[in-house]
Amino acid sequence: MEMNTLNNNNNNQSDSSSPPQRKRVMNPVDPEEFRKQGHMIIDFLADYYTKVSNFPVRSQVEPDYLRKHLPDSAPLVPEPIESILEDVQEHIIPGITHWMSPNYYAYFPSSGSVAGFMGEMLSSGLNVVGFNWISSPAATELETIVMDWLGEVLKLPQQFLYKSSNNNGGGVLLGTTCEAVLCTLVAARDKKLSQIGRNNIGKLVVYGSDQTHSSFGKAAQIAGIQNVRAIKTKRSNSFALKADSLLSTIHSDVKNGLIPIYLCATVGTTATTSIDPLMELCDVAKEYEIWVHVDAAYAGSACICPEFRSCIDGIEGANSFSFNAHKWFLTNLACCCLWVKDHNALTKSLSTNPEFLRNKASESKQVIDYKDWQITLSRKFNALKLWLVLRSYGVENLRNFLRSHVNMAMTFEGLVKLDKRFEIVVPRKFSLVCFRVSPSTIARSNYYYYHDNNNNNKNNCDDNYHNGHDDYGKLVNDDYLVNELNRKLLESINNSGKVYMTHGEVEGAFMIRFAIGATLTEEHHVIMAWKLIQEHADSLLGSS
Amino acid sequence: MEMNTLNNNNNNQSDSSSPPQRKRVMNPVDPEEFRKQGHMIIDFLADYYTKVSNFPVRSQVEPDYLRKHLPDSAPLVPEPIESILEDVQEHIIPGITHWMSPNYYAYFPSSGSVAGFMGEMLSSGLNVVGFNWISSPAATELETIVMDWLGEVLKLPQQFLYKSSNNNGGGVLLGTTCEAVLCTLVAARDKKLSQIGRNNIGKLVVYGSDQTHSSFGKAAQIAGIQNVRAIKTKRSNSFALKADSLLSTIHSDVKNGLIPIYLCATVGTTATTSIDPLMELCDVAKEYEIWVHVDAAYAGSACICPEFRSCIDGIEGANSFSFNAHKWFLTNLACCCLWVKDHNALTKSLSTNPEFLRNKASESKQVIDYKDWQITLSRKFNALKLWLVLRSYGVENLRNFLRSHVNMAMTFEGLVKLDKRFEIVVPRKFSLVCFRVSPSTIARSNYYYYHDNNNNNKNNCDDNYHNGHDDYGKLVNDDYLVNELNRKLLESINNSGKVYMTHGEVEGAFMIRFAIGATLTEEHHVIMAWKLIQEHADSLLGSS
Repeated sequence: MEMNTLNNNNNNQSDSSSPPQRKRVMNPVDPEEFRKQGHMIIDFLADYYTKVSNFPVRSQVEPDYLRKHLPDSAPLVPEPIESILEDVQEHIIPGITHWMSPNYYAYFPSSGSVAGFMGEMLSSGLNVVGFNWISSPAATELETIVMDWLGEVLKLPQQFLYKSSNNNGGGVLLGTTCEAVLCTLVAARDKKLSQIGRNNIGKLVVYGSDQTHSSFGKAAQIAGIQNVRAIKTKRSNSFALKADSLLSTIHSDVKNGLIPIYLCATVGTTATTSIDPLMELCDVAKEYEIWVHVDAAYAGSACICPEFRSCIDGIEGANSFSFNAHKWFLTNLACCCLWVKDHNALTKSLSTNPEFLRNKASESKQVIDYKDWQITLSRKFNALKLWLVLRSYGVENLRNFLRSHVNMAMTFEGLVKLDKRFEIVVPRKFSLVCFRVSPSTIARSNYYYYHDNNNNNKNNCDDNYHNGHDDYGKLVNDDYLVNELNRKLLESINNSGKVYMTHGEVEGAFMIRFAIGATLTEEHHVIMAWKLIQEHADSLLGSS
Repeated sequence: MEMNTLNNNNNNQSDSSSPPQRKRVMNPVDPEEFRKQGHMIIDFLADYYTKVSNFPVRSQVEPDYLRKHLPDSAPLVPEPIESILEDVQEHIIPGITHWMSPNYYAYFPSSGSVAGFMGEMLSSGLNVVGFNWISSPAATELETIVMDWLGEVLKLPQQFLYKSSNNNGGGVLLGTTCEAVLCTLVAARDKKLSQIGRNNIGKLVVYGSDQTHSSFGKAAQIAGIQNVRAIKTKRSNSFALKADSLLSTIHSDVKNGLIPIYLCATVGTTATTSIDPLMELCDVAKEYEIWVHVDAAYAGSACICPEFRSCIDGIEGANSFSFNAHKWFLTNLACCCLWVKDHNALTKSLSTNPEFLRNKASESKQVIDYKDWQITLSRKFNALKLWLVLRSYGVENLRNFLRSHVNMAMTFEGLVKLDKRFEIVVPRKFSLVCFRVSPSTIARSNYYYYHDNNNNNKNNCDDNYHNGHDDYGKLVNDDYLVNELNRKLLESINNSGKVYMTHGEVEGAFMIRFAIGATLTEEHHVIMAWKLIQEHADSLLGSS
């Protein structure tokens, strides 16, 4: 391609040897414009936080609602920030599910804070790309330091800390747990393949339970690992992965010529916050040289409290540990904290050393280049927001804040227990309560009578019931009816817009998950939520 | 584990059935505190932009400088924002390499802007997790719309747009090109493996050139693909990947029983911004059913200008296309725009459907769940910042802004050409100029005389020269001397702190890369930079 031709087409270009002083097109980092717009957005967001409890928590829009409100193509000429903010207010806010609402109890929380936000602003404003040390030494060094701080607060074994591990261990800030699992899985894979040859990738096998987060299976898929075991757990064991189940699965795999490499153990599973017993699992893993990653995405935060630290007892036997500070640690999305005992295992898999990045500091081996601890090359100044959270609130306040959520969850659990129509499906451990209208209530209730009157589909429903199949041909039995009623209860509550909860399923039982952790939630919100749940149950079951 | 025991240890917890109203521990989203701190940080950053040209561009700190300025452990009690900002000013800013400085010409730029920053603030402040449609419909829908807008501005074929492709095509916002390459590579891999069986992963082969970005090899490594071809390019062909080189490499691989699956073509390579000829490459790829990804990480932005659009002529034959809006499109880090013709290929590899995420909207198939287009589950409200950039500046201004950088690069190139000591190593195409002190200058100069006097290591250097080896045992020849001098020139300039450039290497020639694109750079900065380069050359070579 001849670039000269291109250049000649552009009248603005000239190849003059004494360049004229050209007029500035625009200044997209004009400090006064930055100041003006920045103050506007700060006020916009402060007002948003003031009003956020009034918005329907789960957005009530229909698919494709937005296209009709926006132009078909990008504007050719600039538009003022005022018009943009008007559009945000008019058209974006109604399409938001308000994760910052005090009435948000869905999934796990995404807990933002003033400190987390300010840290993100500083990072965005400085806009450094911290792929290696020289590209911004402070970005790397603050990350190492803050991860040592937080590792100590969590009482992680010294091998996981940078300063105490002869620099073999240490922490890194990634975006999400998916990345932490993928990076450590690839490290474990390559460690094994370097011993047995890369052609044996098809023989590798990795382990989790049926409660392990979906990111585990996805990471294995991305890493080209076919054999993924989701070992069955049971309610009788609180849905924890039992060491003997792991052992027998490994035995069977080894017998079949497969090669175990990785276990993803979970502290605080997504469905029920169950806790895999690290000590026993690590003992089994050790025997087979299996890399153990501990995914404490949600519950890891709680482990800064002495009374919860025992949840990760046994961590000294693991190879890596991660939790999401954006979930329940006031650090705005995204912030996943990963610690490893031996970062050489990571860097052996993930290092690149292209010419354009070569520099004296890296070659001196005196510095960390975090690009080699993660999937991507580019990375923001990640540590600022976590540093601001730790400093702005202090460890003691952070502990008490987490405890306040656990206390609210206890309160909520107590209220559920007082209403005999409901049952707690799995005992609460942290700030998640899993509950449902109990099967016995539904058996006793006039549910179908009320339900059908409200829905005008009595015959249809009766038919299904009598046929033993629902509309989709699924087998209909009592469990199905119980699940359906609870599903309808959840849907009617979420449709009200007053609170937002989501569901889980264990051993075929649909349950409502009430996950406390949104930063603005206070006890009165929780009590209001419970009253709302009772009202919707009343109208579905018939008031008692 | 018995959680009751844990709970009993915590005096704040009670299981009372009539819950007392408990005092709020703290409010980390207090709107007034948010406002106060927000305004402070905005002013801090506005002041930073005012002063940024005064800071040494490349940080001048030594490894491990920060630990001595910070406490050994996280604070137990809160610290005021004022103290934190003082520490940022005193200890963090000196450790920053100032990517926002007008005197920043290293790597490729990371171009921030007022609009990009404001978009990031809105995204961080709303703090939604947009993994699927229902989790925040606006986050998904705005992304689809904005990617259609930008796709049209780039004149991408209709198949890459959501609205014009029967919804098979479309765009997604990822963090970086590394993710775009990994996602599309995994899609291509699984498409082939679904036909030939997963056990054949060892036979797959992927193609790039020796100029392809290191993220390509890394993505292949992560995806478990062993056979990665870095096809040689030549200066005589402007370091573009030739279709016949590709074809002969494929032939040889196929002959050896390997199975070609993926080509990463580059528009605007890292070293020299060379351009692979898409049309010819896609023709070859088509014959072998090879997925073609076009990585235009840096140069993609320029393609919004009609005079540069021909750089991606032939894109209609590719399967996917990506560029980094955070590089040269005023969108603060990180923002990689990826378009695919067939998103089913992505979602077949990357979908997960755990129970806790099931919802009516997803099951209706009427909506996009972007979690299935990317590696991670969680994602921010990515589209806001790109939407703000497009609206705040308008397409015409954006074009002119990019042109202004190209014009400055032409100016700089003209200045280099005027000084006969220097040579342009590779003809400039966009806003990157690759230059060096020419071999003939060094041959003529008293370089070693001056060099040794300045460095007091005449003997040592002479010895090396005479021995034919340098300190590290490398073969010393004329090329080596030329490279060493240019390396020293670059290092002495970067050590001055007045500008920051980095290097590249092609066919063994070390060259200095002058990459214009930092948002604040104006022509007078470029002219000043050139004068500085001349001064340092004077002192290294002896003034003429």
